[in-house]
Amino acid sequence: MTDTIISSATKEVVIGFERPFTIIGERINPTGRKVLAEEMKNGDYSRVEADALAQIAAGAHILDVNAGIPLADEPKILAEIIQLIQGITDMPLCIDSSIVKALESGLEVYKGKALVNSVTGEEEQMEQVLPLVKKYGAAVVAISNDETGISQDPDVRFDVAKKIVERAADYGIPASDVVVDPLVMPVGAVNTAGVQVMKLIHRLRTELKVNTTCGASNISFGLPNRDGVNGAFLSMAIAAGMTSAIANPLHKEVIAATLGADVMMGRDPDCMNWIQRFREPAAEGEGARGRRTSGRRGRRPA
Amino acid sequence: MTDTIISSATKEVVIGFERPFTIIGERINPTGRKVLAEEMKNGDYSRVEADALAQIAAGAHILDVNAGIPLADEPKILAEIIQLIQGITDMPLCIDSSIVKALESGLEVYKGKALVNSVTGEEEQMEQVLPLVKKYGAAVVAISNDETGISQDPDVRFDVAKKIVERAADYGIPASDVVVDPLVMPVGAVNTAGVQVMKLIHRLRTELKVNTTCGASNISFGLPNRDGVNGAFLSMAIAAGMTSAIANPLHKEVIAATLGADVMMGRDPDCMNWIQRFREPAAEGEGARGRRTSGRRGRRPA
Repeated sequence: MTDTIISSATKEVVIGFERPFTIIGERINPTGRKVLAEEMKNGDYSRVEADALAQIAAGAHILDVNAGIPLADEPKILAEIIQLIQGITDMPLCIDSSIVKALESGLEVYKGKALVNSVTGEEEQMEQVLPLVKKYGAAVVAISNDETGISQDPDVRFDVAKKIVERAADYGIPASDVVVDPLVMPVGAVNTAGVQVMKLIHRLRTELKVNTTCGASNISFGLPNRDGVNGAFLSMAIAAGMTSAIANPLHKEVIAATLGADVMMGRDPDCMNWIQRFREPAAEGEGARGRRTSGRRGRRPA
Repeated sequence: MTDTIISSATKEVVIGFERPFTIIGERINPTGRKVLAEEMKNGDYSRVEADALAQIAAGAHILDVNAGIPLADEPKILAEIIQLIQGITDMPLCIDSSIVKALESGLEVYKGKALVNSVTGEEEQMEQVLPLVKKYGAAVVAISNDETGISQDPDVRFDVAKKIVERAADYGIPASDVVVDPLVMPVGAVNTAGVQVMKLIHRLRTELKVNTTCGASNISFGLPNRDGVNGAFLSMAIAAGMTSAIANPLHKEVIAATLGADVMMGRDPDCMNWIQRFREPAAEGEGARGRRTSGRRGRRPA
């Protein structure tokens, strides 16, 4: 039983073995979104705000926040949008950057216990990111690759994850504050990607006893009906033990697959979340949305 | 590795551990379908024919055929619709009745190796059904209940399944020709139903080494968005080892959940079935349907 607590100033979300599955909303990220990137660079955060609210209404439990725009002042922008989002919602955030200075800038202004995304098994990365995670009392996403790249061998990926968890412990960060991303390969390119990642998730949970996350949509890269593949993947990965994912809650397959998996795993007592979410024929309307969010709030310690 | 071969006069379908998942189309069943029941009673089988073709087009691999109409001549009707369907398609059939005389009447006219649905662990049932299964060289669905009813205890349900497999062996029917239905409870009524059935499927596969099936939609009884629950259930049950289900292939969630699970389990080489099924924007149109069926044909031994 491992619980990872992430919080804002006033609200906690728990990623945990026996908890309902946690969706980390992926939308606030300018990668591949030209219009958003341009707006953010010019200090126009209206779309960031809209994306935050839409993801919360759709069922996200944590929001990933990324400001990776080429030739922009990423540390400044990241800090600004974190403050903006924390001003309009109590949703806990996942501070997402490959630049250590940006992570630090985000952590400085963040109110609560953030999830830092991410640290890899590369020595330099660990030496820079883990002290920050400790200093700000955050939790961290640990990605199972290192200087040698991403291994095709799940046992090597497990060993990299283990190394990061051990190194985190050296810095005083408990394993319960390390959420491992086993790295999901596109199943269209690597046919064994699904089986591999399910085995790896199971090992991470039973041997390393850590919570897990992933960029769920990687699995369907290059395939048609990506949402269909993502849905099957999410339900099956939850059956294997996965406890959170960075995904798009605006895709109804993501919500059905994860809430449905909670029902199947016995983590939705009396199916109340499922029923609240889907009982209205007008479930896509504004009224139903409001209720959904409050339904979700009700099921986690606040 | 267990393969259960079901066939028509000219086509084989294999339910197996390492095979793509098998959908047994559930639609040809007058239970709860008043209009169909009335038509069938009056010898009008036009809807049976339409349902057969629609399910094949939608992705069924075997068709369940049931003629259980109160106060009707079930043995006669069942034999007639089996002959009708075998006249218009090469799809193997699952002969479904609770009346032994009807099963026999169906088996008499059936061309190929049928799947008989079903035998329970009740002594009288086993004594009547198993000799028929042996006589006609069929395979049989074994349902995990007996004289004492359906146990809430999955270990008892496992023991009932084991008893039927052993009894079948006494009649000369190999375990590979017994497809066990572990019995799926509605998760809205029994909150642990999902976890229970996944454990039971895993035991049936690893200890008893049999193929499995179930009436998939039972899981969502009483809940809203039943197709969403059914989809999550199917993907997760396949991850646990389930190899077939009696389900409605006309529901797109059933197809996405099962073909998606095949992709995830590495049982759709190069994702060819997935791609063939979903690559067209006009995937619901007549042309795409034709291709889907031929795609499926290509992937099983014929």
